[in-house]
Amino acid sequence: MRGYIHIYTGNGKGKTTAALGLSLRAVGAGKKVFFAQFVKGEIYSEVKAIQKFLPGITIKQYGLKCFIYEKPSQADIDRARKGLKEVSEVILSGKYDVIVLDEANIAVYYNLFTDEELINIIRQKPEQTEIIITGRYASDKLIEFADLVTEMKEIKHYYNQGVQARKGIES
Amino acid sequence: MRGYIHIYTGNGKGKTTAALGLSLRAVGAGKKVFFAQFVKGEIYSEVKAIQKFLPGITIKQYGLKCFIYEKPSQADIDRARKGLKEVSEVILSGKYDVIVLDEANIAVYYNLFTDEELINIIRQKPEQTEIIITGRYASDKLIEFADLVTEMKEIKHYYNQGVQARKGIES
Repeated sequence: MRGYIHIYTGNGKGKTTAALGLSLRAVGAGKKVFFAQFVKGEIYSEVKAIQKFLPGITIKQYGLKCFIYEKPSQADIDRARKGLKEVSEVILSGKYDVIVLDEANIAVYYNLFTDEELINIIRQKPEQTEIIITGRYASDKLIEFADLVTEMKEIKHYYNQGVQARKGIES
Repeated sequence: MRGYIHIYTGNGKGKTTAALGLSLRAVGAGKKVFFAQFVKGEIYSEVKAIQKFLPGITIKQYGLKCFIYEKPSQADIDRARKGLKEVSEVILSGKYDVIVLDEANIAVYYNLFTDEELINIIRQKPEQTEIIITGRYASDKLIEFADLVTEMKEIKHYYNQGVQARKGIES
């Protein structure tokens, strides 16, 4: 069975959550999942849930505690590049059926690594491996390369009403 | 903490999966989740994963094995209406922090129940309860009523290349 390349992008809520749901569905079918979080380093509720309940999902973070707002620091770059190297080994190992690269689009957007570097790694994946890439601002090259692209489009968001991110819902 | 009403709609992949991911994140934060699936009756991998790994999520299905393609049968309607009644009791009970009404938009679209019936039930929810509604074709009234609306927009889909739904990825 051939594995495909998915991208979940756009400014709406639901990108990382869709990747999480996909991972949950995959372990329900007995698949093994590697969930790499770029840019993020904070222990969100999703990390706790995976560690506590879902041994079929390996989750690793390659970011700092705070998100990048303007210019990435050298530490941001170092973490992301270390992540890319590890993920590359994980992809080539063939040990995982589904590999999530959460916020990889953001890592590319901030030039932590390039879309071409990412594409070159993914091209070497075992045939059956499914790759899930999330994050705003997916690059044109990545969109062109992917098999499935969904744009999560914000129609309405309560952040605009001043609501903050809440534990267990957004974080 | 006030709970909000989310809608995940549109023709792209990622609506039910986002609701699943949200449920996973919620149990990671110690919340209790009720996941109602309208229209669906088949045991998808997500149901297996929840039953096996996530005791904090109660999942119930209120549909038949096959999806509605043209006109719903009386059995489709009966199941959905039974579901709406049960969900109404679940919402009023206050026992759950997050309640997912998966494919409720489709149930409204096929007139299994109306958006007004659904809105009247949700209006009575305990303040802190979070409600997640998924499915294509969200009605204007539901969009107006919700606090957060994301449209999952299909940019590219491998179904268009003839790929069938695969266990552990789509089902």
